[in-house]
Amino acid sequence: MQRFINDPDDIVDETVAGFVRAHHNMVRIHDTNPRVVLSHTTPKIGHVGIVTGGGSGHEPAFIGYAGKNMVDAVAVGELFSSPTAKSFYDAIKSVDGGAGVAVLYGNYAGDNMNVKMARKMAKKDGITIETVVANDDVCSAPASEREKRRGVAGEIFMWKIAGAKASTGAPLPDVIAAAQKAIDNCRSIGVGLGPCTLPQVGHPNFEIASGKMEVGIGHHGEPGLRVENLKPANQIAEDMVRTVLEDHTLLKGTEVAVLVSGLGATPINELYVLYNRIEQQIEARGLKVHFQLVGNYFTSLEMVGATLTVMALDDDLKSCLAVETASPAL
Amino acid sequence: MQRFINDPDDIVDETVAGFVRAHHNMVRIHDTNPRVVLSHTTPKIGHVGIVTGGGSGHEPAFIGYAGKNMVDAVAVGELFSSPTAKSFYDAIKSVDGGAGVAVLYGNYAGDNMNVKMARKMAKKDGITIETVVANDDVCSAPASEREKRRGVAGEIFMWKIAGAKASTGAPLPDVIAAAQKAIDNCRSIGVGLGPCTLPQVGHPNFEIASGKMEVGIGHHGEPGLRVENLKPANQIAEDMVRTVLEDHTLLKGTEVAVLVSGLGATPINELYVLYNRIEQQIEARGLKVHFQLVGNYFTSLEMVGATLTVMALDDDLKSCLAVETASPAL
Repeated sequence: MQRFINDPDDIVDETVAGFVRAHHNMVRIHDTNPRVVLSHTTPKIGHVGIVTGGGSGHEPAFIGYAGKNMVDAVAVGELFSSPTAKSFYDAIKSVDGGAGVAVLYGNYAGDNMNVKMARKMAKKDGITIETVVANDDVCSAPASEREKRRGVAGEIFMWKIAGAKASTGAPLPDVIAAAQKAIDNCRSIGVGLGPCTLPQVGHPNFEIASGKMEVGIGHHGEPGLRVENLKPANQIAEDMVRTVLEDHTLLKGTEVAVLVSGLGATPINELYVLYNRIEQQIEARGLKVHFQLVGNYFTSLEMVGATLTVMALDDDLKSCLAVETASPAL
Repeated sequence: MQRFINDPDDIVDETVAGFVRAHHNMVRIHDTNPRVVLSHTTPKIGHVGIVTGGGSGHEPAFIGYAGKNMVDAVAVGELFSSPTAKSFYDAIKSVDGGAGVAVLYGNYAGDNMNVKMARKMAKKDGITIETVVANDDVCSAPASEREKRRGVAGEIFMWKIAGAKASTGAPLPDVIAAAQKAIDNCRSIGVGLGPCTLPQVGHPNFEIASGKMEVGIGHHGEPGLRVENLKPANQIAEDMVRTVLEDHTLLKGTEVAVLVSGLGATPINELYVLYNRIEQQIEARGLKVHFQLVGNYFTSLEMVGATLTVMALDDDLKSCLAVETASPAL
């Protein structure tokens, strides 16, 4: 493993410590739980608190989205593992401003279980909690079983929309409705060209053969729809757009937000090569790109690959997107 | 090669096209030269124009630093190759607001030659040009021959300082003095753990054996000071800080700006692991970290590795750093 690590057991603590040093003007570590990162702007009395959390190794997700008008607290898990129920609970407690807490997270078994437990714990404290479970990955289950789909990079849009809505002082049902609409309007797909290695394991837990690619790969190397021969970037971009939009059925003229994220080891120029064709393809289908992000926004350690997320917009989502955020990643 | 590419000959054009699509609110392509990227804020009558340029494959450098209060125009070269003299010239012409142009670039043979030619061409048009050549890479030549050192990630600080100074309406000599002070105050080092591959070549033009690392590597894989056994991240961080600060001889109490950049394929969490120890080590030497950036700011395609840049600050540099910028990368 050609990696910058010390003891693999310390990676998460060292990542969080370095992250908070680097962004000390925006975030801090929870007083007693080193696996909770808090925005300096939380708690805000009378405002809904926004909590997320997930496994480490996806940086800048999830910690990078703690900040002003974004996420208030992030529960931090081990590499590719759910945060504990206690960390979700401590995150919830920290951001409670008396108007309830929105917990917005991905659809993974550990997260589902631990958020459920944290919710019970917080309920005893009299904190009102509602959740939205992201399920934007079109390749992880058929459209008829959307509730089984994984949450991936669309979570970033969900957090931004919800954070913006909460910043207006909106009540909890409105913040939850905005987050739910955001993720309902998102579809994502990942394409993997190379695997990643958990340092504690020391070898990749899956392989992608040279000259092949995994279409529909998950953020932890979950198998995709199919393994194909590696194609030129433009064909990959076209396939990604087709897969996402065929699941979406949007009317011509619909405005969309687009996120192209590298998975960790893809050169940034290649993300722009992909984006160039992706935008062309989206607009060729009569849609209009209103907002876009291209970069390493939601990664999988040093996986080679990229994801595409498309969120359909309406006026309310557009005005939420326009609210300025100040988090380390966005 | 597990990469998102089409015809390798088209990578740069497609990168620039996708980049300008993604950041159309900040930048545009020059009307007649597709290898020049312009900030929407240029030209500004009566203000000094800021130009840089360099080879592609270092994204977000160089194009990502075109923007408000940063670089006004970027000349774009092929992968790891200098822009042409014509592109530097077109960049200079585009940003001339009558107060002269500062061309701030790295110390590579092709860039030196092409900037010199562009300067002659622009002189005939009556444009006053001054240059600053970055030479912050401590491992590329001894301190006694600083003029031979390569320019690396310290250029980002140089651009930010110069852009901030120009935004105040300062005359050309003041902008040049600020840029020169910024780079004089910068020291950088790179450590490579894995090579990179130019798509047109198809195989790495250098190797780093498993279990080894190249200390002092350049942004194109130029050999470093030495090949060593790969060490734990904390030891690498300590070595980087020692090498940089022994070349710097700063008084205790000096405030510094720190930049830790990945080289393209290093997981972002590992940059924070490095930064955690780097900041500790810098402060243990009696210096104070006033400003920091951690991320993929200046890369080398999919090289595995990281760079450290330390810039010593004074009040003037601090107030320049505080000027807000709006470029795709910063």
